[in-house]
Amino acid sequence: MEDAHLVERLASREEILKGKFLQVRRDTVHLPDARLATREYVVHPGAVMVIPLLQAEAGAPLRVVMERQFRYPIGHVITEFPAGKLDPGEDLWVCAQRELREETGYRAAEWAHAGRMHPLVAYSTEFIDIWFARGLTAGDRALDEGEFLDVITASPAEILQWCRDGTITDGKTLAGTLWLQNLLSGAWSLDWKTTTKRAAAG
Amino acid sequence: MEDAHLVERLASREEILKGKFLQVRRDTVHLPDARLATREYVVHPGAVMVIPLLQAEAGAPLRVVMERQFRYPIGHVITEFPAGKLDPGEDLWVCAQRELREETGYRAAEWAHAGRMHPLVAYSTEFIDIWFARGLTAGDRALDEGEFLDVITASPAEILQWCRDGTITDGKTLAGTLWLQNLLSGAWSLDWKTTTKRAAAG
Repeated sequence: MEDAHLVERLASREEILKGKFLQVRRDTVHLPDARLATREYVVHPGAVMVIPLLQAEAGAPLRVVMERQFRYPIGHVITEFPAGKLDPGEDLWVCAQRELREETGYRAAEWAHAGRMHPLVAYSTEFIDIWFARGLTAGDRALDEGEFLDVITASPAEILQWCRDGTITDGKTLAGTLWLQNLLSGAWSLDWKTTTKRAAAG
Repeated sequence: MEDAHLVERLASREEILKGKFLQVRRDTVHLPDARLATREYVVHPGAVMVIPLLQAEAGAPLRVVMERQFRYPIGHVITEFPAGKLDPGEDLWVCAQRELREETGYRAAEWAHAGRMHPLVAYSTEFIDIWFARGLTAGDRALDEGEFLDVITASPAEILQWCRDGTITDGKTLAGTLWLQNLLSGAWSLDWKTTTKRAAAG
């Protein structure tokens, strides 16, 4: 589709917040009609989310690993898929493996890249890369300093019910559940790859 | 579930950015182990998203109204469901009707509240209230000053394909598609209510 009539172009840039965690820019932009407007937004390095599929043995009921974590901006403990921010220069798959291991203790033998989402297109550059993991082996967690979260497991039916009844409101987890539902129904498929020993050693 | 071991409590607050559009706070919080930590986050009034179901007549193929809009922070024209921010003191349903009318020109005879999502729990207070609309009548748009967007329609199958192939990456739209898919399959249901003349006049 032809988009020239919608595109905005940078005129000038100002860094208006350099916080401990958040960086905010204010750009002046040329609108499609050449007038000027202001765009303020958070600059973010990107993140990954992992949907870890836990199956004790072939044919056993599938469980999905999730986290319960207090999210200060919304003031609630929420139920969500494991996720975390990219370290500078970090490969997406390496980040997915690291976050799963640090937050839940699990290592996965197989991984598949599902897609990418943008959680908040209006005022953040953040993207979240969506991964599935299976062939899980439990181990020790290594939470960041000051990080508190519980690891739980849920059946796909429970997760769908929680999306419907408002137990799950986290945007990335709702988006991940769309993937989970269509993967399990067979409507969508994934290209699984095996973790090399080197990558798994981490 | 018992959450006391996860909850963080406000110790002190600082407003660190009062932009034209973005307000950012830095709170010092007591962690569950009583140590102190810093939380920086965007303060947002909340928003609504509308999934407008368009059917020329009973039995006609269903189309869904969407928008194509340039989203400056991610630098792309994206495909998304209509959405917009609450005005101060505005009722959620009134906001849903206003945003649908202003951005697409459509008025809807029937509305249903689906649920609520939080697009970015790590650093924004924003919630997005999810609504469905049907019984659509086309009319004139009333875009905000400096707002440029195209209105399109798509079949549910196209929308699902776009979620799978990366054409749709917008978090709220992926979450809305989870609702759309389960509504159309009959797995989830909605409680539809009719727009009163007074509310529809707007």
